[in-house]
Amino acid sequence: MGSLQTENPEFAAAVATNTDGFATNPLDHEEFRRQGHMVVDYIADYYRDVHKYPVRSQVEPGYLRRRLPDAAPNGPEPIEVILGDITHDILPGITHWQSPNYYAYFPSSGSTAGFLGEMLSTGLNVVGFNWMSSPPPPSSRPSLPEAFLFSGGGGGVLQGTTCEGLLCTLTAARDRVLKKIGREHIGKLVVYGSDQTHCALQKAAQIAGIHPENFRAVGTTRKDAFALNPASLRAAVAADVARGLVPLFLCATVGTTSSTAVDPVAGLCEVAKENNMWVHVDAAYAGGACILPEVRHVIDGVENADSFSFNAHKWFFTNLDCCCMWVKDPAALVAALSTNPEYLRNKATESKQVVDYKDWQIALSRRFRALKLWMVLRSYGVSNLRNFLRSHVAMAKHFESLVTADERFEVVVPRTFAMVCFRLLPPAQAGRETANELNRRLLEAVNSSGKAYMTHAVVGGVYMIRFAVGATLTAEHHVVESWRVIQEHASEILAAWS
Amino acid sequence: MGSLQTENPEFAAAVATNTDGFATNPLDHEEFRRQGHMVVDYIADYYRDVHKYPVRSQVEPGYLRRRLPDAAPNGPEPIEVILGDITHDILPGITHWQSPNYYAYFPSSGSTAGFLGEMLSTGLNVVGFNWMSSPPPPSSRPSLPEAFLFSGGGGGVLQGTTCEGLLCTLTAARDRVLKKIGREHIGKLVVYGSDQTHCALQKAAQIAGIHPENFRAVGTTRKDAFALNPASLRAAVAADVARGLVPLFLCATVGTTSSTAVDPVAGLCEVAKENNMWVHVDAAYAGGACILPEVRHVIDGVENADSFSFNAHKWFFTNLDCCCMWVKDPAALVAALSTNPEYLRNKATESKQVVDYKDWQIALSRRFRALKLWMVLRSYGVSNLRNFLRSHVAMAKHFESLVTADERFEVVVPRTFAMVCFRLLPPAQAGRETANELNRRLLEAVNSSGKAYMTHAVVGGVYMIRFAVGATLTAEHHVVESWRVIQEHASEILAAWS
Repeated sequence: MGSLQTENPEFAAAVATNTDGFATNPLDHEEFRRQGHMVVDYIADYYRDVHKYPVRSQVEPGYLRRRLPDAAPNGPEPIEVILGDITHDILPGITHWQSPNYYAYFPSSGSTAGFLGEMLSTGLNVVGFNWMSSPPPPSSRPSLPEAFLFSGGGGGVLQGTTCEGLLCTLTAARDRVLKKIGREHIGKLVVYGSDQTHCALQKAAQIAGIHPENFRAVGTTRKDAFALNPASLRAAVAADVARGLVPLFLCATVGTTSSTAVDPVAGLCEVAKENNMWVHVDAAYAGGACILPEVRHVIDGVENADSFSFNAHKWFFTNLDCCCMWVKDPAALVAALSTNPEYLRNKATESKQVVDYKDWQIALSRRFRALKLWMVLRSYGVSNLRNFLRSHVAMAKHFESLVTADERFEVVVPRTFAMVCFRLLPPAQAGRETANELNRRLLEAVNSSGKAYMTHAVVGGVYMIRFAVGATLTAEHHVVESWRVIQEHASEILAAWS
Repeated sequence: MGSLQTENPEFAAAVATNTDGFATNPLDHEEFRRQGHMVVDYIADYYRDVHKYPVRSQVEPGYLRRRLPDAAPNGPEPIEVILGDITHDILPGITHWQSPNYYAYFPSSGSTAGFLGEMLSTGLNVVGFNWMSSPPPPSSRPSLPEAFLFSGGGGGVLQGTTCEGLLCTLTAARDRVLKKIGREHIGKLVVYGSDQTHCALQKAAQIAGIHPENFRAVGTTRKDAFALNPASLRAAVAADVARGLVPLFLCATVGTTSSTAVDPVAGLCEVAKENNMWVHVDAAYAGGACILPEVRHVIDGVENADSFSFNAHKWFFTNLDCCCMWVKDPAALVAALSTNPEYLRNKATESKQVVDYKDWQIALSRRFRALKLWMVLRSYGVSNLRNFLRSHVAMAKHFESLVTADERFEVVVPRTFAMVCFRLLPPAQAGRETANELNRRLLEAVNSSGKAYMTHAVVGGVYMIRFAVGATLTAEHHVVESWRVIQEHASEILAAWS
């Protein structure tokens, strides 16, 4: 984009065709500064006021289509008008994940430092597919074994999401095995998780061409708190081997989505090793909390796994998206994911002194995600991060004590981290189906009030409500007030039922 | 994160363990405002000064590892210190993609509006995996046929990158065919591109489990300006069919990476349809320019393709990452990519009135990318966007005329968009290898000077230098000055050679 002074007739002609007035350069630094300050204030005001919005979007499907024009405008519109439309048209349609009363799914715990890191990454707008623009991954980690670090022959990489990480490791595992047994046997490979494993595993298996009948969601039980029992895995694997299938990959989960169950990593790795399977430990939610010495034991045994990941964008104050992944055998990733065209050849790569992350992930282009995680680590420091996480655990414990103190409710599964799974108990003489229906109504009533937002899960046939503490702005009084809202709606629902 | 006032002893204990002083809430709105303004100024100053930096990173492998500490700090560090480290440690290590003298690869043409949209997306920090948080995709598009739009039974989705888009469509195509012929025939499926197709296709084929021997990079020739000739494709497909293989997928490229060649979409679609293949049109670089009426013809025939994508983060003023993709048969995508666990069940999805984009992409979680593209469209308007694009084309034409006027050089392939592929001609009596070596030296000399950054490609054995205009800050005088730098280095290299 050029200035208006030009002696090039082609260029002048291009410029002259604009009858609506030629905007300043789209990266003009003073206009950037002016508009950037406006948007910072806009977002700061949003955080100041976010507790006032209904947490869950209260709009109906199609609302935005009716509000937005069919086509982009021909001429430019001022930032003031656009921000006004965001306030009036966009904000009512979104669910406010940063609300202090957000307890749904898992939190996306943003922070100022995470935001600023993303700003810097976006501003530099570097496309880091090879070494040139990628600094080494951040060195703070939940005390992982040496074998996962570059110094020990392994290595770390920032992915966007766990889905991508799982697909990369599964593809690496697949090709490592197929190289030995022949590509024609792809239809024999089997992938294992539990019936509590995140659907990302099944999706990764589908994409990687694993036969749909060879995906095993091994059953869990309430007795094991919905963790995958190594004996169940061993039985499933043995049955497959007996049928001539080839066990390939196990995903062990530390902190399942439904109930934050913790699969026993050490025991599962033993079974996997007996069968030469790749083990990925998915600690998407709970992994960040492993910087707490009192939590670290949940990944004991990880030294026997092949890869490990957690989402810093879940419970580690780093804005979406940022999945930290480590592998023991980077060569397997590179073998499965690399292609080396001429137009990317360069001296640094050929020197073998650098890591080209394009060969560790699905996409070629890479945003500079390390910057936001690095900003989080430096801005808060490990000591504060630990205290932030502990405050969430403390609030969840407090919520648990409130639930326990009300005899109409129960805590359904043991609380391990900062999520409490609870439900209304069935009234006298009523059975599980009644209880499930009452809890379904309770959840919908609370969410429709806009005062708090929670989601549900069903484990062992029991419908339960998940109360996940971790939104950055949540303070104790929000938890207490949310519990009061839940109690009020419960009283109404029980009264209407009886 | 809570306030310090608490009556919960667990919570008080957690807070009290912090001996380094308890930081304010990581999303405190006034601290967010203060730091946000600082970083806006930091980036505005960067854009003001970016022309002063050596464009290509001038550091050696390992430089950053020596500068950064091994572990994260225990206590918090002030933003002022962190920004200082970015200036001193990070900026010298990156390649400045936003420099006005950046002509390498393809541009990542950021803009103020793209940046602000990313800020808003990061600030809201919404994890849009289902309808709740995803507005409809932007409606401005390079006049695509109705069949690609929701109104015509198709649909659009924003992916991160073309790599992801290709993997999604390839997986959809794969499963659509395997459903008919049986999964055991996965080893027979064949994927086609040309020897100029981006390596993203090969990578997607690898990940999707296509047999590595069934990836065809059909040869192109200088006579066809390195576009894929439909007759060559037809011959390749016929040979595979004769061997009992099953043609699956063709990627046609509009604006190849090496030379911006344009594959003839209409003719290629005919061949593909004869063989029931899925055709994806990859216009990663050139697609945005299809909003120019004088350019739109390059995708003529796209109505016969199955999917189409372009990267708004390449040449459409939208900061990384944002790939716009349309498909005719969304049901094929959903069939290949969906999983529907209980914890994601909701009324909106079950109403079938909404689009859950998790089933249109690799990952479950989705950043709110629509916001930045929407900001770009509204802030600049179609008319200005056309003029910005035309100014880049005009600058490339001007550069082309400068090259042509210097008899030591030649333009190697016809210029179609805003990239000029040129080279030093071999001196008298010297052959192609000599010319290749001279151009290699010329490129390295210019890039090492830090005054401009270009990259190379080899087509038909000819090493050529790619001069891609499109960085947002590039003005005509930068192009003229860069040509002068190239000429000077050429004179030195030729003098040293003779």
